[in-house]
Amino acid sequence: MNILVLNAGSSSLKYQLIEMPSQVVQCVGLVERIGMEDAIFTHEKDNEKHSEVTPILNHEIGLKKITKTLLDPKIGVINSVDEIKAIGHRVVHGGSKFSHTVVVTKEVKDKIRDLFDLAPLHNPANLTGIEIAETIFTSAKQIAIFDTAFHQTMPKEAYQYAIPSTYLDDYNIRAYGFHGTSHKYVSEKAIETLNKDTSKIITIHLGNGCSMAAVKNGKCIETSMGFSPTNGLVMGTRAGDIDQSVIFFLMKKLNKSADEVNDLLQKESGMKGLTGFSDLREIEEKAGNGNEDCKNALKLAAYRIKKFIGAYAAALNGLDAIAFTAGIGENSSLMRHLSCCNLEFLGIELNNSKNEIRSKDIREIQSLNSKVKVLVIPTNEELEIAKQTCELLN
Amino acid sequence: MNILVLNAGSSSLKYQLIEMPSQVVQCVGLVERIGMEDAIFTHEKDNEKHSEVTPILNHEIGLKKITKTLLDPKIGVINSVDEIKAIGHRVVHGGSKFSHTVVVTKEVKDKIRDLFDLAPLHNPANLTGIEIAETIFTSAKQIAIFDTAFHQTMPKEAYQYAIPSTYLDDYNIRAYGFHGTSHKYVSEKAIETLNKDTSKIITIHLGNGCSMAAVKNGKCIETSMGFSPTNGLVMGTRAGDIDQSVIFFLMKKLNKSADEVNDLLQKESGMKGLTGFSDLREIEEKAGNGNEDCKNALKLAAYRIKKFIGAYAAALNGLDAIAFTAGIGENSSLMRHLSCCNLEFLGIELNNSKNEIRSKDIREIQSLNSKVKVLVIPTNEELEIAKQTCELLN
Repeated sequence: MNILVLNAGSSSLKYQLIEMPSQVVQCVGLVERIGMEDAIFTHEKDNEKHSEVTPILNHEIGLKKITKTLLDPKIGVINSVDEIKAIGHRVVHGGSKFSHTVVVTKEVKDKIRDLFDLAPLHNPANLTGIEIAETIFTSAKQIAIFDTAFHQTMPKEAYQYAIPSTYLDDYNIRAYGFHGTSHKYVSEKAIETLNKDTSKIITIHLGNGCSMAAVKNGKCIETSMGFSPTNGLVMGTRAGDIDQSVIFFLMKKLNKSADEVNDLLQKESGMKGLTGFSDLREIEEKAGNGNEDCKNALKLAAYRIKKFIGAYAAALNGLDAIAFTAGIGENSSLMRHLSCCNLEFLGIELNNSKNEIRSKDIREIQSLNSKVKVLVIPTNEELEIAKQTCELLN
Repeated sequence: MNILVLNAGSSSLKYQLIEMPSQVVQCVGLVERIGMEDAIFTHEKDNEKHSEVTPILNHEIGLKKITKTLLDPKIGVINSVDEIKAIGHRVVHGGSKFSHTVVVTKEVKDKIRDLFDLAPLHNPANLTGIEIAETIFTSAKQIAIFDTAFHQTMPKEAYQYAIPSTYLDDYNIRAYGFHGTSHKYVSEKAIETLNKDTSKIITIHLGNGCSMAAVKNGKCIETSMGFSPTNGLVMGTRAGDIDQSVIFFLMKKLNKSADEVNDLLQKESGMKGLTGFSDLREIEEKAGNGNEDCKNALKLAAYRIKKFIGAYAAALNGLDAIAFTAGIGENSSLMRHLSCCNLEFLGIELNNSKNEIRSKDIREIQSLNSKVKVLVIPTNEELEIAKQTCELLN
């Protein structure tokens, strides 16, 4: 059956049409710059790319554009909207309410709306995507897949903050964790690779956003992002962990507003704040040419990953595999090297030439001596969404 | 020679007169509630305690009271102020300027004053202590010992935050670390116990404030407190690490001011926030009687310690010993047990009956199988201050 995977952002719509259970991707595409006269629409089928710049003033127009393209006799892939059996919607924040994928109902939509405060940039767009899809794909099942769901198995000592417990009970302030669809997909692939009954795995998702998860026997017990997707690892423009007193200091001594500090930590920090650049390839190139800021930022980002590997090995009391994934995790051999070097005590040892190999396949890059498997596993959040959608329907 | 160790807080003055190099403590005492009509003065010599409630309206009156007592024919220990050769002053924040103990000069005082912004509760009181001592003990050398100094050996990737580098360069926003005098003292004792040339040690200072340090060959390479003494471990009333977005959420959604949130995180959080109690003995007792909040808070605090042990074992790429110290670290066998259980992967295994022994001595509490030594080392910041004062004079 055909599953449309839809990821609605604040100014974008990403989609894939996947046939299940064959997992054949029929087409992929993206609307960017929604709300602009010069929005960009890209659609790809059989490696043939179609691209156009056109006014797309809102998400509804965007999804209609996508639908029209899906139905197009030349570049489309279906003859009628009814051929799409279900739409799998990515929803960033499921709070404590959703630990699994669910069929969208009025109640589900209300709960997604209740969580707007916790994910102000994402949940409103995600809900918009659902509501528009309901009007266009009337015969399809609408399914919501939450980025937080995989982390709902964390024990209380991992998700609770040491603040008055009323803030947990009354305001749901706790660690949720994000990138759950990716951590789930990658940890399951890692478990397949291990081929044993019990498993202790650390997944390391390094993309524009970065997070790690500790996964014990397939269940998440800890993750590096918390209440929001801003803390933990050093990211492209996000600071990750920082002593909270820095915030008060910046507000008091530099007369910044809370919004300004928040913006600073989310948009001007991370690799960009440290180097002036946010694209890792550029930073690696400049570091190779001797730029001290870039060399230092790479060290800092890798050192943070290393500390989380140690912390999670302690939380798991063991370690069978660590798995790198997402744009940087899959492609930057340097970041993998810097994160894994000098970790022999934890049983981690890279094979340098295996680490350098570029491939789209799952691969093992540890040395013969390494007690821990070091894996590179291309993530596929869209496929995971299609799989979960499919499982729910069956 | 006689060294007076002085720890001037915002409303207190703690002192010890220590004869060096014999390390004999001649007397110890404390002025509390400075500024009040009912301040409390306590002085102890040869296990004989003298205590009185009396108006002590400022630090000058307090130090004069102490001096008079030191000279008292009955309960005192000296005949003339000239018998005190040096005063070792505890100074909380030395910023990036002081990596060692120094003789106080006008320049040093100016630098301590420059750091008021970074330690608004401590440095002003510490400086007041120095300035008054200079007028009373005119022939003594005044020495400043900084809580941050021991951590100045941290590499840049450990102390820099992932925010625009201008904040490090222009405003000195970075991790400093605190309790340095204690971490130094305890790590040196641990190294003596190990009796080997190279060493990888984690020191765990659990008192009212809590912090950990990773110490490689005697040099600190990482510590859990950062820019301020509020982050890292869960403490009596301080939250320790928390996703920074919680701060913005509390300000925005609950209309709290920055000061209110800061107060909440420093004074109403930690064990107190989780349980309603801040004294660990009370919390342990209630947990023993089945109080779920207390059981949970102990788990949470210990889990955080455990993650730092793992992170630091990774940063050190090895581990010879971990050492518990300070009020809770020395006395709570439960907290040690909870922090060390299920860490066999890191080579840590407690001997339960050894862990239960109460003593004032340095002791090893690991099991025979444990690859890592687990030590309990009573800290002695006053002695460390006296030692450093003495070393500087010689």
